[in-house]
Amino acid sequence: MVNYRENQLDRTFAALVDPTRRAILARLGREESASVSELAEPFAIKLPAVMKHLDVLDEAGLITRSKEGRTVTVRLRAAPMKEAMDWLRRYEQFWSKSLDRLARYAERKETETRRKR
Amino acid sequence: MVNYRENQLDRTFAALVDPTRRAILARLGREESASVSELAEPFAIKLPAVMKHLDVLDEAGLITRSKEGRTVTVRLRAAPMKEAMDWLRRYEQFWSKSLDRLARYAERKETETRRKR
Repeated sequence: MVNYRENQLDRTFAALVDPTRRAILARLGREESASVSELAEPFAIKLPAVMKHLDVLDEAGLITRSKEGRTVTVRLRAAPMKEAMDWLRRYEQFWSKSLDRLARYAERKETETRRKR
Repeated sequence: MVNYRENQLDRTFAALVDPTRRAILARLGREESASVSELAEPFAIKLPAVMKHLDVLDEAGLITRSKEGRTVTVRLRAAPMKEAMDWLRRYEQFWSKSLDRLARYAERKETETRRKR
């Protein structure tokens, strides 16, 4: 199970590396489903390039595609996205601490600089 | 600014693809800092391989390295990690909805199956 999870995280993060794929996932998050041509519309790239991105997302288990007549409908598979977020969230408290330390450091430096003036 | 952000997200997610790199980031999240040899210890891979992962994390802007004498101290840079989480979080409500729909569907199927018995 741990290996499956690690492997799924590898695939999810790899899918998220590309801005076009992130934009597709974002749109499928907002809308319940979209056809391939609807998904391709906002991008300057050609349909075959969009199809390739959809293949990557499909192989990573992040979308499902279903065909009805000539229309392919694409839907988000939410579970792996949630897993990726849960992974990041587990460490959030520590990043927050580290960002707080950074903010305090910047504040102290600012005060020091003002005093010197 | 948008381009910088997209680019940083590309690099952050690319760094997160590898389980060894995720483990290093997780540890640097828990502990404030660690030496390279401390970081390498739990892994079955050799030190040069760990160093390569640290190079990737450094180039992605996710860690800082500082040398004192013979010891290299590694620290997490929390800001890009937070950005990646914020990106995922923006769509969380939609995934939650989609997961809820899935749960309701499974429940309905379960009830139907029970009734048939």
